[in-house]
Amino acid sequence: MKSKTLKDIAKALNLSVTTVSKALNDYQDISSATKQRILDYVKKVDFTPNTFATSLRKKESKIVGIIVPAMAHYFFSKLLQGIIEKAEENNYLVIVLRSNNYELEKIQIRRLLKQKVDGIFLSLADNSYDIDHLEEISKSDTVLIQFDRVSKIAQSSKVVINDREAASTAVQHLIDRGKRKIAHFRGGLMPQVAIDRFIGYRKTLEKNGIEFRPDYVHICEKGNETQGYDAAQKLLKQHPDIDGIFAHTDMTALGAIRYLKQQKISIPEKVGVVGFSNWEVSALMSPSLTTIDQPGKKMGKAIFSQFLKDLKTLKAKEKIEFKTKVIKTQLIQRQSS
Amino acid sequence: MKSKTLKDIAKALNLSVTTVSKALNDYQDISSATKQRILDYVKKVDFTPNTFATSLRKKESKIVGIIVPAMAHYFFSKLLQGIIEKAEENNYLVIVLRSNNYELEKIQIRRLLKQKVDGIFLSLADNSYDIDHLEEISKSDTVLIQFDRVSKIAQSSKVVINDREAASTAVQHLIDRGKRKIAHFRGGLMPQVAIDRFIGYRKTLEKNGIEFRPDYVHICEKGNETQGYDAAQKLLKQHPDIDGIFAHTDMTALGAIRYLKQQKISIPEKVGVVGFSNWEVSALMSPSLTTIDQPGKKMGKAIFSQFLKDLKTLKAKEKIEFKTKVIKTQLIQRQSS
Repeated sequence: MKSKTLKDIAKALNLSVTTVSKALNDYQDISSATKQRILDYVKKVDFTPNTFATSLRKKESKIVGIIVPAMAHYFFSKLLQGIIEKAEENNYLVIVLRSNNYELEKIQIRRLLKQKVDGIFLSLADNSYDIDHLEEISKSDTVLIQFDRVSKIAQSSKVVINDREAASTAVQHLIDRGKRKIAHFRGGLMPQVAIDRFIGYRKTLEKNGIEFRPDYVHICEKGNETQGYDAAQKLLKQHPDIDGIFAHTDMTALGAIRYLKQQKISIPEKVGVVGFSNWEVSALMSPSLTTIDQPGKKMGKAIFSQFLKDLKTLKAKEKIEFKTKVIKTQLIQRQSS
Repeated sequence: MKSKTLKDIAKALNLSVTTVSKALNDYQDISSATKQRILDYVKKVDFTPNTFATSLRKKESKIVGIIVPAMAHYFFSKLLQGIIEKAEENNYLVIVLRSNNYELEKIQIRRLLKQKVDGIFLSLADNSYDIDHLEEISKSDTVLIQFDRVSKIAQSSKVVINDREAASTAVQHLIDRGKRKIAHFRGGLMPQVAIDRFIGYRKTLEKNGIEFRPDYVHICEKGNETQGYDAAQKLLKQHPDIDGIFAHTDMTALGAIRYLKQQKISIPEKVGVVGFSNWEVSALMSPSLTTIDQPGKKMGKAIFSQFLKDLKTLKAKEKIEFKTKVIKTQLIQRQSS
């Protein structure tokens, strides 16, 4: 008996290929009866997902690679999850690599190109100062999708959020809650996301007729809890009249909250705090953290969808029209503001 | 000029291959001066890590696959990080797949076998009722390493923790803190880790002359925060005299703490709480959570090291002596007990 493909199974059961794929990948959005029916059928027939890959163009490896700066990081975990789910639906395998500096980034890209992956998904390292290595990808048969930390000049489709607008929403929220002396804990000086969040902060103050004060801005480059704690301590000692903190990550915001609680400074009455990213933990803390939701899983899925589109164009020997997909963020208001 | 290998670089700089690899992979445990020296040299010479792979046996794909049940899960993220770091040091690529049920697990294994990966790292799905699919791996040239949720009968090396002993440590700790009416929030009935943690709980009570009561045990199959909250609510309504909770995950423990705080039940004076796994968030909560540290990154590295050993044996056409490596856990005492 010839091996069954996803399509065969869908046809035999009078269902869509997507539904069959969803059942096999254990998605929640189909009925359990349908799922059971599909699983029962699959048990009976000889099915492996790769059997239908062979009908596709031979040149494709059906592998993509993603390079992420940090693994045990809630946002990137969710993003990875979105990519892997979408990749499985489309019968792709995902190689995961790590990089947080320019030299390693170059090496990882070469490793993936040697492997002849169909796509490379990349968030730039903070110290990536040129884009020659990205141009290497453009010259190959591999599709590059940039996400999160992107180079504006590199030629590729991109999946991003509007960091400036998101920061502006966060700061405007603090102002609307009556705050006027608002500090900003920012990322390093290089990454575009840190620059954009800072600009969003500054412009929103100015738009509201509030003076921008450089001494209210602290750099928390690592974005971790300890840096948030330390920055809050320094800030509040110099400026005890601070009434709001907009932190560039949830972890720095949580560090600030720990300091405020220790000092018995009431949150949000005396100082309101807003984070950025919406990590799982932020809802569980006491007080729970107001933050900007950065939908990692949705971004992951968008990255993969854009890759499929660009690959199709590339294989048709047409010129790719690079798209920048902006994923919507939103303010999640909780107890800290 | 011939491309440089890691070995060439090490030789030229009079350093070990490991040190060079560490610098390129941005590890923290070498001096920044050495790292800079290596990076400067690498910039000058033509280096890609794959150039030295070609000298190895042709049959190897230099790719391994890992199948994990959940992506945005702190323990698995850390484990993945350990595997990927170790893989990079050894010039392997890592394909990451997801599975949380038996049917999908079979499919994922076949995908990896078709890809001719050198190793498959697997934590069994809760409903995996036979091991035929694992035997498929044994019959191939691919090394299987089981971790975390393992089948005791399947022939492979394993990397695990001693769940029974870890649970026993947690429960003994509560008893030592004066607790006598200790509840257990456990995982499902099938997974061996849930069974072992439950046995550790029960035996430790009995060893201390404390009666085991089935009505003190609640199943929190998903192990999430909400289930912990609900279980604490039910439990405390039926048994207001409960004075300790040993939860099988940090998240269920945090859910229980949320309920206790809402009810103004003092922690740890009235009820002591111990979790399991040591997620990042557990140290940040108020009260911070006492828990069993399950070192994910260390496990990941051990998995990869065992794979390299078993692969070497396999390629030498010798019989693999399957090892079970038990990674040490420890109790991290914090405010909740």
